[in-house]
Amino acid sequence: MSFSPLLQQLITALRCLPGVGPKSAQRMALHLLERERESARHLANALHEAVEKIGECQICHTLSETPVCDICADDTRDKQVMCVLESPVDLIAIEQTGGFRGVYFVLKGHLSPIDGIGPDDLGIGHLLERVVSEGIKELILATNPNVEGEATAHFIAAQINDADVRVSRIAHGVPVGGELEFVDGGTLAHALAGRRTLQRDIK
Amino acid sequence: MSFSPLLQQLITALRCLPGVGPKSAQRMALHLLERERESARHLANALHEAVEKIGECQICHTLSETPVCDICADDTRDKQVMCVLESPVDLIAIEQTGGFRGVYFVLKGHLSPIDGIGPDDLGIGHLLERVVSEGIKELILATNPNVEGEATAHFIAAQINDADVRVSRIAHGVPVGGELEFVDGGTLAHALAGRRTLQRDIK
Repeated sequence: MSFSPLLQQLITALRCLPGVGPKSAQRMALHLLERERESARHLANALHEAVEKIGECQICHTLSETPVCDICADDTRDKQVMCVLESPVDLIAIEQTGGFRGVYFVLKGHLSPIDGIGPDDLGIGHLLERVVSEGIKELILATNPNVEGEATAHFIAAQINDADVRVSRIAHGVPVGGELEFVDGGTLAHALAGRRTLQRDIK
Repeated sequence: MSFSPLLQQLITALRCLPGVGPKSAQRMALHLLERERESARHLANALHEAVEKIGECQICHTLSETPVCDICADDTRDKQVMCVLESPVDLIAIEQTGGFRGVYFVLKGHLSPIDGIGPDDLGIGHLLERVVSEGIKELILATNPNVEGEATAHFIAAQINDADVRVSRIAHGVPVGGELEFVDGGTLAHALAGRRTLQRDIK
């Protein structure tokens, strides 16, 4: 005795969600069927529509419903400053700060030879083409501050030979609003090494 | 700047899953769109099929793809012993023990006046009808061993006036394979009160 075929199929299908194991999938399937049939129907439609209609921007590779995303299509953005990111979520996070007016390039991942993910999978060729063809003046590498992100950033930096392109990396340091006591050693070492002089007003 | 309308719709729809908050929903949506489009399509279909085709058994109210579930349709089961459960998952758990050959009644919940869930919502009327019409000899109340489950079991027991129907409750006690040291006080008290005499062989 086990679940009926359709129920078993739903439980298996739910396991494609990140962080959902066999027990959670079972709980989710029964919850939907017992109490949330309308929401389940809605979720099925939302999934279907999203998969069919959301593609990627031809220019920056972020998720987009149109061939060119709103940011790439926006003429008021500074097209000479480009920020390189690992994921569309990072793009949203940076946009929400409101402090960046340049354009983006989304790699959708990081270099990972062990998983067979090389420069071609991340579209690094396309990125380098854009740097040349669009006359980029500054390339800000904002990949994640972990080993894979650093490696990816260094790989990209090594490909840029043009002396006119400034290649920068986002600053490592202590988070704003935190307390030194709770900051890990690696971050603290970076924060010290990257210290900046506070200029006194000169009269 | 935020997510595109279809992506936002998907993130909102994913929140109907139990235990999924805004951050998990966002992570799930992006994971599906970036890496698992085929699985997402499959999940949409599985949800759709399950919602449309899985109904409940007319007799025992468990989830079933047919009007009468396999267990209720099985003539080899003992139709005079009925086990009352809170959920279809509990039915699967009991079937997996292989030790029960009677039939079931699934309440799909427990009495909860605060949420407006009364006897009618659990189909207790139908349960009582079955007890009479099918000539049930024993009704095993296997609702959850918590306050709500106990209350529901006592409510049902109080409705059975027929002296020919034995009403029982599953035993409370120490779990098999555990150690007394780690058993909570309430369970230990129940285990002591429910102690059984070990019969010596009489020759």
